[in-house]
Amino acid sequence: MTQDDFEAAKRSAASWYWWGIPTFFRCPWNEDPSQCDIALVGVPHSSGNGSTERDQHLGPRAVRNVSGFYRRAHGVHNVAPFEQLRISDLGDVPLPEAMNNEACVRDIEAYFARLDAAGARPVAIGGDHSITGPILKAIAGPGRNLSGGKPVALIHFDAHTDSYENMPHWLGAKRSAAHWAAYTVREDAVDAARSTQVGMRGHPSGLIHGGRVGGSSEALGYRVIKMDEFERLGVDATVAMIRERAGEGPCYITFDLDCLDPSVAPGVSNLEPGFGGFSIREATRLLQGLKGLDIIGGDVVCLMPTKDSPNNITAQVAMVMMFEILTLIALRKTD
Amino acid sequence: MTQDDFEAAKRSAASWYWWGIPTFFRCPWNEDPSQCDIALVGVPHSSGNGSTERDQHLGPRAVRNVSGFYRRAHGVHNVAPFEQLRISDLGDVPLPEAMNNEACVRDIEAYFARLDAAGARPVAIGGDHSITGPILKAIAGPGRNLSGGKPVALIHFDAHTDSYENMPHWLGAKRSAAHWAAYTVREDAVDAARSTQVGMRGHPSGLIHGGRVGGSSEALGYRVIKMDEFERLGVDATVAMIRERAGEGPCYITFDLDCLDPSVAPGVSNLEPGFGGFSIREATRLLQGLKGLDIIGGDVVCLMPTKDSPNNITAQVAMVMMFEILTLIALRKTD
Amino acid sequence: MTQDDFEAAKRSAASWYWWGIPTFFRCPWNEDPSQCDIALVGVPHSSGNGSTERDQHLGPRAVRNVSGFYRRAHGVHNVAPFEQLRISDLGDVPLPEAMNNEACVRDIEAYFARLDAAGARPVAIGGDHSITGPILKAIAGPGRNLSGGKPVALIHFDAHTDSYENMPHWLGAKRSAAHWAAYTVREDAVDAARSTQVGMRGHPSGLIHGGRVGGSSEALGYRVIKMDEFERLGVDATVAMIRERAGEGPCYITFDLDCLDPSVAPGVSNLEPGFGGFSIREATRLLQGLKGLDIIGGDVVCLMPTKDSPNNITAQVAMVMMFEILTLIALRKTD
Amino acid sequence: MTQDDFEAAKRSAASWYWWGIPTFFRCPWNEDPSQCDIALVGVPHSSGNGSTERDQHLGPRAVRNVSGFYRRAHGVHNVAPFEQLRISDLGDVPLPEAMNNEACVRDIEAYFARLDAAGARPVAIGGDHSITGPILKAIAGPGRNLSGGKPVALIHFDAHTDSYENMPHWLGAKRSAAHWAAYTVREDAVDAARSTQVGMRGHPSGLIHGGRVGGSSEALGYRVIKMDEFERLGVDATVAMIRERAGEGPCYITFDLDCLDPSVAPGVSNLEPGFGGFSIREATRLLQGLKGLDIIGGDVVCLMPTKDSPNNITAQVAMVMMFEILTLIALRKTD
Amino acid sequence: MTQDDFEAAKRSAASWYWWGIPTFFRCPWNEDPSQCDIALVGVPHSSGNGSTERDQHLGPRAVRNVSGFYRRAHGVHNVAPFEQLRISDLGDVPLPEAMNNEACVRDIEAYFARLDAAGARPVAIGGDHSITGPILKAIAGPGRNLSGGKPVALIHFDAHTDSYENMPHWLGAKRSAAHWAAYTVREDAVDAARSTQVGMRGHPSGLIHGGRVGGSSEALGYRVIKMDEFERLGVDATVAMIRERAGEGPCYITFDLDCLDPSVAPGVSNLEPGFGGFSIREATRLLQGLKGLDIIGGDVVCLMPTKDSPNNITAQVAMVMMFEILTLIALRKTD
Amino acid sequence: MTQDDFEAAKRSAASWYWWGIPTFFRCPWNEDPSQCDIALVGVPHSSGNGSTERDQHLGPRAVRNVSGFYRRAHGVHNVAPFEQLRISDLGDVPLPEAMNNEACVRDIEAYFARLDAAGARPVAIGGDHSITGPILKAIAGPGRNLSGGKPVALIHFDAHTDSYENMPHWLGAKRSAAHWAAYTVREDAVDAARSTQVGMRGHPSGLIHGGRVGGSSEALGYRVIKMDEFERLGVDATVAMIRERAGEGPCYITFDLDCLDPSVAPGVSNLEPGFGGFSIREATRLLQGLKGLDIIGGDVVCLMPTKDSPNNITAQVAMVMMFEILTLIALRKTD
Repeated sequence: MTQDDFEAAKRSAASWYWWGIPTFFRCPWNEDPSQCDIALVGVPHSSGNGSTERDQHLGPRAVRNVSGFYRRAHGVHNVAPFEQLRISDLGDVPLPEAMNNEACVRDIEAYFARLDAAGARPVAIGGDHSITGPILKAIAGPGRNLSGGKPVALIHFDAHTDSYENMPHWLGAKRSAAHWAAYTVREDAVDAARSTQVGMRGHPSGLIHGGRVGGSSEALGYRVIKMDEFERLGVDATVAMIRERAGEGPCYITFDLDCLDPSVAPGVSNLEPGFGGFSIREATRLLQGLKGLDIIGGDVVCLMPTKDSPNNITAQVAMVMMFEILTLIALRKTD
Repeated sequence: MTQDDFEAAKRSAASWYWWGIPTFFRCPWNEDPSQCDIALVGVPHSSGNGSTERDQHLGPRAVRNVSGFYRRAHGVHNVAPFEQLRISDLGDVPLPEAMNNEACVRDIEAYFARLDAAGARPVAIGGDHSITGPILKAIAGPGRNLSGGKPVALIHFDAHTDSYENMPHWLGAKRSAAHWAAYTVREDAVDAARSTQVGMRGHPSGLIHGGRVGGSSEALGYRVIKMDEFERLGVDATVAMIRERAGEGPCYITFDLDCLDPSVAPGVSNLEPGFGGFSIREATRLLQGLKGLDIIGGDVVCLMPTKDSPNNITAQVAMVMMFEILTLIALRKTD
Repeated sequence: MTQDDFEAAKRSAASWYWWGIPTFFRCPWNEDPSQCDIALVGVPHSSGNGSTERDQHLGPRAVRNVSGFYRRAHGVHNVAPFEQLRISDLGDVPLPEAMNNEACVRDIEAYFARLDAAGARPVAIGGDHSITGPILKAIAGPGRNLSGGKPVALIHFDAHTDSYENMPHWLGAKRSAAHWAAYTVREDAVDAARSTQVGMRGHPSGLIHGGRVGGSSEALGYRVIKMDEFERLGVDATVAMIRERAGEGPCYITFDLDCLDPSVAPGVSNLEPGFGGFSIREATRLLQGLKGLDIIGGDVVCLMPTKDSPNNITAQVAMVMMFEILTLIALRKTD
Repeated sequence: MTQDDFEAAKRSAASWYWWGIPTFFRCPWNEDPSQCDIALVGVPHSSGNGSTERDQHLGPRAVRNVSGFYRRAHGVHNVAPFEQLRISDLGDVPLPEAMNNEACVRDIEAYFARLDAAGARPVAIGGDHSITGPILKAIAGPGRNLSGGKPVALIHFDAHTDSYENMPHWLGAKRSAAHWAAYTVREDAVDAARSTQVGMRGHPSGLIHGGRVGGSSEALGYRVIKMDEFERLGVDATVAMIRERAGEGPCYITFDLDCLDPSVAPGVSNLEPGFGGFSIREATRLLQGLKGLDIIGGDVVCLMPTKDSPNNITAQVAMVMMFEILTLIALRKTD
Repeated sequence: MTQDDFEAAKRSAASWYWWGIPTFFRCPWNEDPSQCDIALVGVPHSSGNGSTERDQHLGPRAVRNVSGFYRRAHGVHNVAPFEQLRISDLGDVPLPEAMNNEACVRDIEAYFARLDAAGARPVAIGGDHSITGPILKAIAGPGRNLSGGKPVALIHFDAHTDSYENMPHWLGAKRSAAHWAAYTVREDAVDAARSTQVGMRGHPSGLIHGGRVGGSSEALGYRVIKMDEFERLGVDATVAMIRERAGEGPCYITFDLDCLDPSVAPGVSNLEPGFGGFSIREATRLLQGLKGLDIIGGDVVCLMPTKDSPNNITAQVAMVMMFEILTLIALRKTD
Repeated sequence: MTQDDFEAAKRSAASWYWWGIPTFFRCPWNEDPSQCDIALVGVPHSSGNGSTERDQHLGPRAVRNVSGFYRRAHGVHNVAPFEQLRISDLGDVPLPEAMNNEACVRDIEAYFARLDAAGARPVAIGGDHSITGPILKAIAGPGRNLSGGKPVALIHFDAHTDSYENMPHWLGAKRSAAHWAAYTVREDAVDAARSTQVGMRGHPSGLIHGGRVGGSSEALGYRVIKMDEFERLGVDATVAMIRERAGEGPCYITFDLDCLDPSVAPGVSNLEPGFGGFSIREATRLLQGLKGLDIIGGDVVCLMPTKDSPNNITAQVAMVMMFEILTLIALRKTD
C-alpha cells in the first residue's frame, strides 16, 4: 500500500461512523473560528436546568459518535454544504466550573463572542436549554457582528415557552433554562415582534401561580403557536406565519428536542408525556420551509444520551436537526 | 434556615420526582378511604394473565416513581383536581397469596368494597387486566354504594375484548384477564347495553375455536368499535357514540395500555405488534371527550415496567391516563 | 395425568412463546423441502453489508423466539394458513464461511436452489439485504422452477433502492446489499418493467458521485415511489400501481425493515433517521393490498436484534411482516 | 457446492450459537426418553416462588440460546460426553396451567416419571426451585426406577436451605420453593442422613419466627455447610465431607444459582446481596470433585434471564453447571 | 376477609419489595426526629461532585425501592434492630436549590442539626460524597449533641482520601466531595488522630500537583491504609488498627461505594477501574468488626442508579451497608 | 474571560471525559508517526474472528470515550508518561474493505510498517485478535526497525493459545484470530523460545480434532501457563518465569481481555464462562512485574462495547491495560 493509496483509502472510508476520532459530521477539527464559515460547537452544560435529569452535558459526545455516518448532501434542498462552505468542528466550550450555572453562562457567552467577532455562524448542540441565552447574547443585538447589531427573530421549537419570569430561580440557577426566552427579549438580543414559538403542549404546572402556557410569552410580544393550533394550521400555514413575522432580518433557530413526540425522540430531558409532539416529518418540513431566511445561527438542545433508545435514535434525530439548520445557513450564504 | 423556611422550601420543591418517598402525584399517603374523595390505589397483581410476561405487579411502583414530577392542573379542562378535591394515595391492595389468582381476586374485591362503603371513587393502576373484574364487583351493581345500586356503563379501551368465555381457564386462572368483561355483565356489575369497547385489533387466535374478535362481546350486548371502524369514525364520532350509549347513569373507565401503538407504549404485556394502535393524542382526546359523564372510578392496566423504554415512557403514559381519569371525576364532583 | 391428557395439554399450551424449542410460528422443524408448501428459512448472514452494524445474523433466532406466541389466523384475509398448507421451519442456511460474503452468497443460492427444485415457496428472514440476490437467483429466471422460468416482478419495500452499481464494492463485499437490486435485473432474475420500489427516503450520500436516490433504479427500468410520492398517492393508489405493473406473472416481495419509521422499528441496521418512514398500519395495508398476486416467495431483512427495544418490538414487527407474506402465498395457493 | 459438501459444511459449522434452531448444547431434539441416556429438559415454571421476580420460566430458552456455542469435551475430566452417550434435548415440560403452582408440580412429576420409567437420567434447567420437589418425587424413593427404589443423597448448592416448614404457604403456593427440601425428606425421596447442603449465607428473615438459617434442615438430618464454614474448610475438605456422607448410593445434585456471588451470576431471582457467594472456580471445583458418585440426575435453577448482564453471563454460567453435572453422569455411566 | 384478616395479611406480606409505598427497610415514614432512635435519611444531592456522572441524587429512591425485601434480623450479630429500636424513614433532605452546591450544603447541615438536637442518630444515603461534610458539621464537634461536644473519630472507607485541599474548587463547588475530609478536621468536627481512612487505590491524578494519594491526609493526622497495605494486613489487623485509634469516644462511619471492586458495585460514580477494590465479604467483615464502638451516625454515598446492573446489584449493596451501620448503632444502644 | 484565562481554563478542565473531541487519554491527535515516541492506534477490525459477536471494531471508539478522564501518572511505577514522552493518538487504521479479513490484514501490516520505519512504538486497541498477526509482522523480525531485526519475545495473556493450526480457516478468514500465534512464529516475527502464553482455561472444543488446549503451542516452542498452573505458581513466580524466558531482547505484549474473569470484564467477545479468569489485581500485577523489559509495543483486544456493562467497565479495564503497557514502554525509554 503506497502512501497515496493509504490516503485515498482513508478518504473513501471516511464516512463510516465506527472509524477514527469522531468529529461532527467528520468535519475537520479546527478551534480557530476565523477559518470557517459555519462553526459546529458542543456546549456540554447541564447545570442550568438539570432538576431531575442531569446528563445533557453528554449530548455533544453522543452526536459526534453517530454523525460520522451521515450523508453529505441534502436531498430536498439539493445542496452539499460540506463541500460548499468551510465547516469545522471547533470542539466544546470549556466549562471549568461545570456545576456553577452562572459561571458557565458567562463562559458560553465569552466563547461565542469570539465566534461573533470572527464572523463564524454557530450551530451548537447542547446541553440544556439555558445555553441559548448566552449564545444569543453573544451574537445578537447591539454591538454584535453576526446580527448586524440588530436583535434577531427567534424561531423557537419547543414543548415549553421558557419565558417563565414569574418562577423562582430554577433550583438555584439564575440564568436558567426556564426564562432565557424572556431575558433575551428584555436585553435586546431577541426581537419578540419578529419571533415565533411553536409546539407548546402539556398541562400547566401548579408551581406557576396563575400562569398558563404561553401567557408571559405573549406579553413579551412573541407569537405562540401551541400544538393544537399547529394541528389546525398544518405545516404550510405555520411556516408562512413564521416567515411573515421574521421578514428579512437576521434569524436564529433553537430546537428543543422535547417538541418531538416521545416515540420519535425518547432520549430527552423533561419529556412531555401527554398530548402528541411533532413527528420527524413535521419537524423536518417545518425546518425546510425556512429556506431563504437569514439564519445566523442555531442550536439543538436537551438531548439526554443516557435515556436514549438502544439504537441512539434521539442522538441521530439531533444530528438530523443540526444538519437541517446548517443547510439553511449554507443555502443563504451560497446564494 | 428557620423551621418556616424549611417547610416553605420543602413545599416549593415538592414536585420534583427524584425527591422523597414517592406517592402517586405526591398526594398524601392515607390508607383511610373515608378521608378522601378520590382514592388512588395500586393493585400489584400479575397472576391473572401472566402467561408470558409476569411483571405487571411492578406497575404501581413504576407510576409512583415517575408521577412526582407531573403537573398539578389540567390544561384543557382548566381544573386543578388536587386542590379542589381530597385525593389520597391509599397504598397498594395487600395480596398475601400473590401467586394464587382466585385468592387475589377475592382480596381485591374486599379491598375495594371498603372504598365503596366509604364513598371514595377509586382510580387504580394495575396489575394485569384481571383486576377490573373484582373492582367492578366491589363498586357496581345491586347493593353497591358508588354506583347507586345500578350496573355501570363500561367504557373499555383495549386491543382485545376480554370476553372470551369459550376459552379454557387462562393457564389455570379462573377469574382471569381473558373473561372479566363477560362475567361482570353476567353478574350485573356492568350494563352491556350502555357500554362500549374501543380499539380492538389484531389477528384472531387459533385457540379460540370459531371465535372472532368482538364476537362474544356483541352477544353480551356490548358495542365494539374495532380499530378500523375507529379510523373511519374519527375521535369525535367515537366519543359521541360512547356518550350516547352511556347516558346519565354511572360509568367506569378501564384503560388497557395495549390499545396504544407499541411505539408510544412499548412497556406493556401482550403487546399487539400488527396493525396500529392509538396515538397519545387520540387516546387523550377520547378520554377528554368524556367530560361530564358520571365516572365513578377507573383503572389503567398492563404496564410492564421491566419492558419499558430507558426513559420510562410507558410508565409516564400510564400516569397521564390516570390523570385524565381522575380529572374527569373531579370535573363532575366539583360541578 | 394420562399419556392422552399429556398430549392434549401439550397441544393446548403450544402457542405460548416462552415454552419449548422455538421454531418459526411453532411450525414443525423439517429440513426436507419436499415435504412443505411454504418453507420458512433463516438466513443468518451479516457480511454483505455489515459496515457499521453487524448483528443481522441474529435475526432468525430473534424471530423464532418471539413468534411462538403469535396468532394462527389472519383477521383481515380470513384464512388460517398453518392449517391449510404444509408450512415448515427448515432451519437456517448453513454458512460455514460466515465472514466471507462471496462464499455465503454461493451457499445461499445453492440452498434455495434445493427449495426451488422441490417446489417449496420460501419466506426468509435475514440477515442483511445481500441475501435477496442469491435467493432471487435460485428461484427466479430461466431454468428456475418456482417462477416458471420467467423473471419475477420484484415488489421492494425499502428506504433505499439497493441498485448502487456505481459504488465500489461495499467494504470488500462484491455481491453486496448495495447493488443486489441491479445485478438481479441484469442477470434475468428480476423483470424491472414489472417491478416497483417503494418507500425510499433520506439524503443522498456524497459517496455516490452524482447519484441521486432512485436514479440508477429508473435506468434499470424500475418504478420508484419515493416516500414523498407515497404520501401524495396514499396506500390505495400505491397498491394499484404495484398491482398494475406486476400483472399476472410471478412476484417476489422483499421487505427491508428500514422502510418503517424508526419509532415503530428501532432495531434495524442502517437506520434512516431523517424524514418519516411507514407506520405499521401503512405497511400492513400495503402488503394486504397484494392479495391475489402470484407471490412465489419473500423475505424480511435488516433486523438488528441487539439494537431492538427492551420489548423486542422490531423482532415482533419482522414476524408480522413474515406472516403477511406467507398469508399472501397461502391465499393464492388455496384458491 | 455438492450435497456432500453441503452436509459437511453444515456439520462443521454446527457449533456456533447464532445458527439454527437452538437446542441444549446442539443435542438432537427427541421427545422420546427411551432413546437417550441423559435427558436434557427445560422446566419453564415460575409460580412456585415468584414472589417478586417472576421470569424464571424463561430460563430454558435462555440456556438453549447460548449453549450452541459451548465446547463438546470436558478439559479436566478428559471426556467427550456427547460422543460417548446418547444425550437428547427433550424439550420443555408442558405446563398448561402455568399460573397454578400445584397443577404444575403435578405435571412436572408426571413428566419426569416417564423419564424414570425409561431409564433416562435427567439434567433439568428451571424454573424456580420448586421444580426440584416433583423431580425428586418422580425419580427417587420407593417404587422409582432410577434410584433403585432408594431415597437419594441430595447434594444441594444454595444460599438458602429451602426447608422452611414453619413458613406459611409461600404466597399461596403449597409445594413451593421454600420447603421442597423438607417434604422430599418426609416423603422418602431424599435420605437426609446422606445429604449435604452447601453455601448458605445471608441474614435470617424476620418472617421465619425464631428460625435460623440451617435450623430446620439440621432437624431433618441434613448436614448444612454455611458459607463461613465453607471458607474455613476450603473446597477439598468440603468435597470430602459431601462424598463421605453420600457414599455409594444414588445421588442427585441441585444447583441454585444464588449460591454464586452476584458479581459472577447477576441474573438470578432472590439475589443475596450481603456476604460473598461462590466464585466460578469454587463452584466448578466443587462439582468436579464429585466425580465417581452415582449421580442419577440434577438440575440448575433460579436463572432470571430478564435481569442478566448484557452479555448473558448468568445464562452461560447456568449452561456450564449443566455441563458439569451431565459430565459427572457420563463419567459414571461410561466407566 | 374480615378486617382483622385483612390487617394480618397486610402485615405478613409486608416485606415484599414490589408492594406498596417504598420506605427504607419498610420502616414507618415519620418526619419527626424526636420520635426515633435511628433516623434513616435520603440526601438526594449531586452538585458537589457531579463532574461527569450526575445522578447520585437518585440514590435514596433506588435504595428505598429495593430495601422492602430485605431481612429484618442480623445473622452474625444476632440482633433484630427494627424490633429493638425506633427506626424511621424521615424522607429526604429538601434541596430546593439543587443545582447550587453551597446552598445545598447549608440545607443539609440545617436538616441534620434538627436530628442532632432531637438525639436521633442518622444513617444517610447519598448523594455524592460532599454530603458527609455538612452531616459531620451538624452532629459532631463543639456544641453538638450526638457527639457530646467532641469531634468524632472518622472511619472512612473509600478509594480516595477526599482531602485534596490543594485542588481548585471542584468544578465550581466550594464545599465539595474532594475536600470535605480536610475541612471537617480543620473545623473540629473530626479528630484525625482517632480517625482512619481505608481502601485508597488508583493512580494519582496529574491535576494534583506534586500530590500523592494519602499525602495531605497524613499531614492532617489521618492514618491512611491504602489498598495494598490492607492486602498485607488482612481484615482482622485492619479492624484492630481502626478500633485502637478510635478508642472509646464517638465515631462516624462513611462508606463510599467506590471502595468496592467494580465487579461487585458497578453502579457508582467515579468508578476506579484499575487495581482491585474490596469484595463484599471483606467490606461486610470490616464493618462487622466495629461492633461495640460508639457509632453516632453514618452514611453510604456515590450510588449511581442509572449505571447499575440490570438487577440493581449496587443499590442492594448500598442497602446492605446501611443495614450493617444501623445494626452497629443498635448493638451499642441496646447494650 | 481573557484569551489567556480561556486557555488556562481549557487546560485545567482537560481531563474530564464528557468534554470535547475524544482522543486516547486526551493525547494530541497527530497522524504523523515521526513526531511521537509512543503511537496510540485504534484497529477497528472485526472480520478476523467475528463468528458470533462482531462488534470488536467499536473498541477504539469506546476506549477513546472513557479515557479522557483517566489519571496522568502511574502510582506504582512513579512515572508520568504523558509528560516524559511524546505520546500521540494517531487515529485508526483505515480499513476500506472492512468485511474482507485478508485485505484488512494487509492494510494493518502496511500501516504499522510506517510506524516501524518512524521508530514509533505502538500501543494498539482492537479489534479482534487477528490484528496482532499483522502488527507483529510489521514491527518484528528480519528487516524490521523496532525489533532491531530480531523476532520478539511474545508475552501473551489470553484464555486461548490462538495457535490452532489444525483448524480450518475460521469462517473463511485465513489470517485469523485463531492461528496468528502460530504463523508469526513460523514467519520469524516471534521467537517462541523466549515467549510465554499465560491464562489459558476452558474446555477443549470438539472441533479441534485430537487437539488439547496448549498442545500445538508447545510444539511451536511456547511455554504455556494454563490458569490452574498460574494459580499454583502465583503472580511472582509467573512473572519470574516470563522474565527469565524473555531475557534482554525485544518483547511484545498482547492482552486478550477474555483472560480476565467475566465478572470484571463482561464486555468481551468469545467470553469464557467456565473456570475463573484473572482478577484486575492479578492482571495489573502481572503487567507491572514486567518493568524493565524492552517492550517495543503491545495491544489490547476483543473489547465488545455493545456487550459491556451499563457503566462501561470493560472499556475502562481495556484503558487501564493500555496504560500499563505504555507505562512499561515509557519506563524503559526514559531510563
